[in-house]
Amino acid sequence: MSEQPIRFAPPGSAQDVEEGRQFTPRFDAGGLIVCVVSDARSGELLMVAYMNAEALARTLASGQAWYYSRSRQRLWRKGETSGHTQRLVELRTDCDQDTLWLKVEQAQAGACHTGRRSCFYRAVALDATPPAPLMLKFDDEAQVFDPAQVYRKHDDPKA
Amino acid sequence: MSEQPIRFAPPGSAQDVEEGRQFTPRFDAGGLIVCVVSDARSGELLMVAYMNAEALARTLASGQAWYYSRSRQRLWRKGETSGHTQRLVELRTDCDQDTLWLKVEQAQAGACHTGRRSCFYRAVALDATPPAPLMLKFDDEAQVFDPAQVYRKHDDPKA
Repeated sequence: MSEQPIRFAPPGSAQDVEEGRQFTPRFDAGGLIVCVVSDARSGELLMVAYMNAEALARTLASGQAWYYSRSRQRLWRKGETSGHTQRLVELRTDCDQDTLWLKVEQAQAGACHTGRRSCFYRAVALDATPPAPLMLKFDDEAQVFDPAQVYRKHDDPKA
Repeated sequence: MSEQPIRFAPPGSAQDVEEGRQFTPRFDAGGLIVCVVSDARSGELLMVAYMNAEALARTLASGQAWYYSRSRQRLWRKGETSGHTQRLVELRTDCDQDTLWLKVEQAQAGACHTGRRSCFYRAVALDATPPAPLMLKFDDEAQVFDPAQVYRKHDDPKA
């Protein structure tokens, strides 16, 4: 991999950003861009993660999804520990180019480090409003793999 | 609306956050949480926006989607200018409760302020890698309303 910082073309005018044909991803003050990740075949929302410019460049170069972990402050390739890699099928951007949408082919059973196919296995019960406690309902909660088997004790528990 | 700051229950242990039944949304250092918004009926990804605690509380109380604009630094109710409101059908959260997924019933034709149904009307052409310029392909680009008609000159151009 290059040691040079990766640079994408900087955003132009609002008109250019919204109606133009140049990809000018808008990273936030911390250098990150939010990524919505869905299953290319089923359309299911799998996870949301972040990329910095290098993660995006590696993803484009390799066709495999790379992200940047805010908590661990490092690049990670999805599946580097678990084998649950993601092959990039389509990359979309939104009107102001500050969000990416990856459609991926998810290897193995699941995208979520808890063992589920998707990270979104709980819904908020909509029959209470604050300050009443808001509760979650589990659905789509079946584990498709055992995290204790996939991630060993000293492994990075999300990669 | 209450003048009191809205408080949601604070996150507990990782085990509680990931496997528990209490909704403890994790707002970032700026007090925001990212929201993926899809059409409840078609499943289509419409947009990505942010909420602060008050926007989330208002959404839960009203059943209509409220967001927080980072650029304008204010709360906004989706459709307050355009009429393109969003009725909350389902609210989901991810494993570490730092992302929300709203399934909504989108009023009128489109969610995007550019006139499209979805903000994600462009895909990145995957046949180049940096430093080669990355180009966008328009698809799903048909305007379903005319922004010049919907937003008058002094309107907030995204609400």
